Amino acid sequence: SRSINLAVIPGDGIGQEVVAQGLKVLNAVLPQDVKLQTTEFDFGAKRYHATGETLTDADADALKQHDAILLGAIGDPSVPSGVLERGFLLKLRFLFDHHVNLRPSKLLPGVATPLAGQPEIDFIVVREGTEGPYTGNGGSIRTGTPHEVATEVSVNTAFGVERVVRDAFTRAQARPRKKLTLVHKNNVLAYAGHLWTNVFNRVAEEFPDVTTDYVHVDAATIYLVTDPGRFDVIVTDNLFGDIITDLAAAVSGGIGVAASGNINPSREFPSMFEPVHGSAPDIAGQGKADPSATVLSVALLLRHLGYEPEAARIEAAVSADLAERGDTARSTEQIGDALAVRVAG
Amino acid sequence: SRSINLAVIPGDGIGQEVVAQGLKVLNAVLPQDVKLQTTEFDFGAKRYHATGETLTDADADALKQHDAILLGAIGDPSVPSGVLERGFLLKLRFLFDHHVNLRPSKLLPGVATPLAGQPEIDFIVVREGTEGPYTGNGGSIRTGTPHEVATEVSVNTAFGVERVVRDAFTRAQARPRKKLTLVHKNNVLAYAGHLWTNVFNRVAEEFPDVTTDYVHVDAATIYLVTDPGRFDVIVTDNLFGDIITDLAAAVSGGIGVAASGNINPSREFPSMFEPVHGSAPDIAGQGKADPSATVLSVALLLRHLGYEPEAARIEAAVSADLAERGDTARSTEQIGDALAVRVAG
Ligand SMILES: CC(C)[C@H](C(=O)O)[C@@H](O)C(=O)O
Ligand SMILES: CC(C)[C@H](C(=O)O)[C@@H](O)C(=O)O
Repeated sequence: SRSINLAVIPGDGIGQEVVAQGLKVLNAVLPQDVKLQTTEFDFGAKRYHATGETLTDADADALKQHDAILLGAIGDPSVPSGVLERGFLLKLRFLFDHHVNLRPSKLLPGVATPLAGQPEIDFIVVREGTEGPYTGNGGSIRTGTPHEVATEVSVNTAFGVERVVRDAFTRAQARPRKKLTLVHKNNVLAYAGHLWTNVFNRVAEEFPDVTTDYVHVDAATIYLVTDPGRFDVIVTDNLFGDIITDLAAAVSGGIGVAASGNINPSREFPSMFEPVHGSAPDIAGQGKADPSATVLSVALLLRHLGYEPEAARIEAAVSADLAERGDTARSTEQIGDALAVRVAG
Repeated sequence: SRSINLAVIPGDGIGQEVVAQGLKVLNAVLPQDVKLQTTEFDFGAKRYHATGETLTDADADALKQHDAILLGAIGDPSVPSGVLERGFLLKLRFLFDHHVNLRPSKLLPGVATPLAGQPEIDFIVVREGTEGPYTGNGGSIRTGTPHEVATEVSVNTAFGVERVVRDAFTRAQARPRKKLTLVHKNNVLAYAGHLWTNVFNRVAEEFPDVTTDYVHVDAATIYLVTDPGRFDVIVTDNLFGDIITDLAAAVSGGIGVAASGNINPSREFPSMFEPVHGSAPDIAGQGKADPSATVLSVALLLRHLGYEPEAARIEAAVSADLAERGDTARSTEQIGDALAVRVAG
């Protein structure tokens, strides 16, 4: 019989609330024969304040024993900027080699967008997750003096670029439009740009049925608001991906419905799935958070583990719920309940 | 008597057409007593193909003799990506120390925006122009092999950050709302982020009447489409500025009306003013290009040289023209003529 051994990290702020609903829907959608086992971890601001720890070696070892990780949100204003980001979120991506950061953007019927004219939006961004300016390479001399020099080094390897580009081509090939856009800034970042462009063009030869194009990152932000329908699959570097996926989430219904996966396709280490929204401390504990992004992240998690029909059922349920939602305010729990009913039914 | 010694670089594509209208309006707005002298330079794709040159030392010396530079657009698909960008545009920014890259975003009445609900947008971005990942620092080893490593180094100095931050505070202080937002990614780019944040906070003490806040670059793209009215003045690094100003232009009426200045506030070297749109080879030579962005760049140029009333007259003329434009298609020249009449009248 099948089983899922899931690590659960509710984290900070609204993390607890939304993860509870994610698990509710997960339980409802899974067939009887699948044994779901969950282990909760207490990472986040509270643990940091109590112990000074963000993610120890023992923590990492414990997480490794799982098939996947579901995360709510990590981050709190009481912790200095960067500590939990670099000490937990990024550390995990690097430790578990989450090189495919998958962020789908689909404007679902009934969902509000800041764009006029309710355009069709349905693309995915494959963001590289382990290289670029995220490596922590860099430094500062004469720190704090008028002569300080601070550097950040974007590190890009053929190995790292090729594997994520290949992943993106494979995903593009599996979609009806079969179109892949490389987003970079190769006219300015010449060394990295050359590597990305060359690898992209070389891998493209193995996927002759995939249409390709190239867009500078600055121009990509223009297209995302004037013609988002032009995109099918985007592959891009870690920093550009960070920036354009927030914009993509904003135009396609907001971070309330934006899901993401930090994926290690080799399954050597567990992949992690999380809503794109943060911990939103201003509304935490009030039952106001929309759990849809977390529930959609559970769908990505199931797809990654090979439960495609269940993933599709969740996505259909969220889509139907949003379409029929109307203006009645519902609590986090009420939305979770409604989704659980839909996926079970 | 006063005089302006202007270097004019029409450049490629629609550059010729829009610059002609910019000069027409400039001539129309200047008082009789101001002697305008222009020298045209032939930089761009044609010159590159003919001579292999983008910007020689002699060219730079010749440009230096001028009070300011008006540029149309540089770039053509026949030239490999990066050659003219790094060989001309960026080279000039570095040679003439254009550290304040000024990009106003104002949604004028009657102008279409991709955003729903016609929000109020009126902010300026002060983008650093001589540091960050634009310095060309970086390299590649084992180039073209499966073991290639390519790096790009973002270089940030206290000197470079402080002067642009100070410029931005000064501009914020002169505006009614007096608000300055630092956009960076200090939770990930820790060294550069620390420098930017520290310098920003230190300079802020000298401007107690300016309200400050901080927004991560990814979140900034969300605000730019969901709440652009929250911004008054933004100061940011070279690459983040490149990205968010294209988005800012898109939401506030498109690159057809987006002006920019590459400014050396010390006036040690001439500053350069240019529309944000590129050379648009697809519509070049057809009289279809909107010269408004170039005309607004002329206004920035005049303001930089101390001709505030004339700058304001141009801005009012463009604003009125756009408001009354309606749906009738007008040629580049017709729009230029209309603006020349307005500023003279
Ligand atoms: C919190 C931060 C480190 C993170 C990132 O920059 O990757 C976030 O913005 C994201 O997109 O997941
Ligand atoms: C053409 C390119 C080098 C330039 C830049 O990246 O600065 C452009 O995008 C801009 O914003 O002026």
